[in-house]
Amino acid sequence: MAEGEVLRKAKLAKEAGDKLSSISRQIKDKALLAMADSLLKRKRETLRANAKDIKFAQDKGLSPALIDRLTLNEKRISAISEGLKEVANLDDPVGEVISGWKRPNGLQIYKVRVPLGVIGIIYESRPNVTVDAASLCLKAGNSVLLRGGKEAINSNIALVKIISEAAYNNGIPQGAIQLIETTERSAAQEMMRLNDYIDVLIPRGGAGLIKAVMREATVPVIETGVGNCHTYVDKDADLEKAEEIVFNAKCQRPGVCNAMETLLVHKDVASAFLPKMFKRLKKAKVEIRGCEKTLKILPRVKKATLDDWATEYLSLILAVKIVKSLKEAITHIKRYSSKHSEAIITENYPNAKRFTEEIDSAAVYVNASTRFTDGGEFGLGAEIGISTQKLHARGPMGLQELTSTKYVIWGEGQVRG
Amino acid sequence: MAEGEVLRKAKLAKEAGDKLSSISRQIKDKALLAMADSLLKRKRETLRANAKDIKFAQDKGLSPALIDRLTLNEKRISAISEGLKEVANLDDPVGEVISGWKRPNGLQIYKVRVPLGVIGIIYESRPNVTVDAASLCLKAGNSVLLRGGKEAINSNIALVKIISEAAYNNGIPQGAIQLIETTERSAAQEMMRLNDYIDVLIPRGGAGLIKAVMREATVPVIETGVGNCHTYVDKDADLEKAEEIVFNAKCQRPGVCNAMETLLVHKDVASAFLPKMFKRLKKAKVEIRGCEKTLKILPRVKKATLDDWATEYLSLILAVKIVKSLKEAITHIKRYSSKHSEAIITENYPNAKRFTEEIDSAAVYVNASTRFTDGGEFGLGAEIGISTQKLHARGPMGLQELTSTKYVIWGEGQVRG
Repeated sequence: MAEGEVLRKAKLAKEAGDKLSSISRQIKDKALLAMADSLLKRKRETLRANAKDIKFAQDKGLSPALIDRLTLNEKRISAISEGLKEVANLDDPVGEVISGWKRPNGLQIYKVRVPLGVIGIIYESRPNVTVDAASLCLKAGNSVLLRGGKEAINSNIALVKIISEAAYNNGIPQGAIQLIETTERSAAQEMMRLNDYIDVLIPRGGAGLIKAVMREATVPVIETGVGNCHTYVDKDADLEKAEEIVFNAKCQRPGVCNAMETLLVHKDVASAFLPKMFKRLKKAKVEIRGCEKTLKILPRVKKATLDDWATEYLSLILAVKIVKSLKEAITHIKRYSSKHSEAIITENYPNAKRFTEEIDSAAVYVNASTRFTDGGEFGLGAEIGISTQKLHARGPMGLQELTSTKYVIWGEGQVRG
Repeated sequence: MAEGEVLRKAKLAKEAGDKLSSISRQIKDKALLAMADSLLKRKRETLRANAKDIKFAQDKGLSPALIDRLTLNEKRISAISEGLKEVANLDDPVGEVISGWKRPNGLQIYKVRVPLGVIGIIYESRPNVTVDAASLCLKAGNSVLLRGGKEAINSNIALVKIISEAAYNNGIPQGAIQLIETTERSAAQEMMRLNDYIDVLIPRGGAGLIKAVMREATVPVIETGVGNCHTYVDKDADLEKAEEIVFNAKCQRPGVCNAMETLLVHKDVASAFLPKMFKRLKKAKVEIRGCEKTLKILPRVKKATLDDWATEYLSLILAVKIVKSLKEAITHIKRYSSKHSEAIITENYPNAKRFTEEIDSAAVYVNASTRFTDGGEFGLGAEIGISTQKLHARGPMGLQELTSTKYVIWGEGQVRG
């Protein structure tokens, strides 16, 4: 019955989206706060469902890391509930007049921000994504169709039941927040082709999931999150700043998309910089894979292969390459980067300027950690993901990126000559 | 050798796009003016090639309308050349800082407009699209891969030879403007899947072409141009304004996407409005297809079928439906519109406000003709098409819509805590 569920819920989502688009901020915020409350009040339902998912994952022998990502507890539920309150505090993007002007013939043109309509989210195991994504879509006036990983299905069913009931009881149209409960792959595939009912798909998860959605979907997709991020230590770098930034970009949270995966070092500073850096990274249990020149300075590290330059490790591994010029660094980044975040460490003005102009990534840093590529860190509020494509949205996607625009034109009988 | 050509040219386009992104406005404008000149100087080459296309079309028995669209003459070449000069005069969107702010930790964030990279245009028979599209892509700093209809292949080869040579001789990198000369369908299909080399595809043409590209492409697509546009004459309409607007929206140029296809009339004004309107439309050779209520007022018109409500005629045919309320008009439009352009004719403030809020189309008019949905008429300069989707761009797409953004972040050693 996969087909039945997806199509039925998508139709309902579209109807709800139609109504949602003209619902006031007051109602949306009231609903978000009620959802936050309800999550706390009904936490035992959620924990019970989550226990089932955890038991199943243990029986299946899933890795401790994966089980940790699945796991909810009181603290995590509180954090999810706080997140809803933060979204309620964010400005409503809908109705903003982005620009407006008067034409010589008297037509008054307004470009106005409107919801996208129905957003499909296809994601993996973390159950917190369920609530985060639903709240952001709701605040931007969109219906959401959630399709989470099968490992978290019981948790997701409980969470969506709780938040959608709270939303509905506070004036949000039925169908605005729905979960696809069918865990077969065919259900996700059906979503990917429902152009008449779904306006945009946002996959969240690993590279495999994202690539599959890009390949199979006819519904427009926003590509998110794969981050093969680089830091380049220039010949004119302040090596103390460089050390702090490199350490932060690699170690502060290695499992996320804005963590650094490859370090490029100018040959003139390699011997001064690498041995000290290596010691500090080694202490933090980072495995280094170096180019041949790196191996001459750090003889005990593993040799990097071509694959290393292209890999998003998402773990405590770092590829290191010594380059002979800024130009070689830029060429390497252009070739291997996933266009997420890159940084140059330098005190040299022309080099900083050139790097920011020639590197074509969503976020390009001078003297800062790539770890800042994040909606919260940018000051955009919560984010639904980080776009690595060039259409519609690039970089951290906040509420504005969950909207479209329309033109409203006020006339007084104008016709075209 | 279809595969060879598309892949080779796409790779070259990507290299050229990389270089183009940092080329100054001065060089781009000089190249555009040189292209304009060259088109005039070498017009005989173009006319000779065009004559071949026309002869082939005549031999194949193509319709006079299609042959007219294919045909170039001195006047049309002059107009294309003038178009290039206008694009040179438009502001360069690249490098614009859209917004910027300082974070509490001192990070200075800029959101900067950058080119998309490589744009693929898949279009039908008009050879003027070849030059228009190339010039807009170039001005916004993008490479372009053109894939026109096979009927215009000789004209397109001549035009691209002339403009790309002029561009190259004036500092534009080789490969920035290229035509796919293979006319087999497989060449277009190959373009649709070259995600590593093409950043966005813009199909321009009939509904069939656009649907096919949407269905088959893995490269992101901007949907353009299908316009099943409505005008609603409200019970509180000024019927003189209504008559002028309806006539203009249907008759001024019926073959384009912003022309009206369905007229909705409130029952209270139907008898006062329709007979007079009908006379005027009949004189202009418009065929009316009416709902049952319309037939009671205009007994000699053809009865509309359900298909009529969904059809973009692109010709002198008009579907007419009498509705009992604004609500019914909005419901009808939501059901059948392609979300391009809709108008309400009314002197009633709440009705005007409600129509602009509830109708979710790219352009929503009060008391004006839908024919104004156009880059030039909106004051955006030349346009590459009219987006009817919600992602990235909606409505007329000018130079800004041919760009993306990136974040540039200036720090002084910041790391994430």
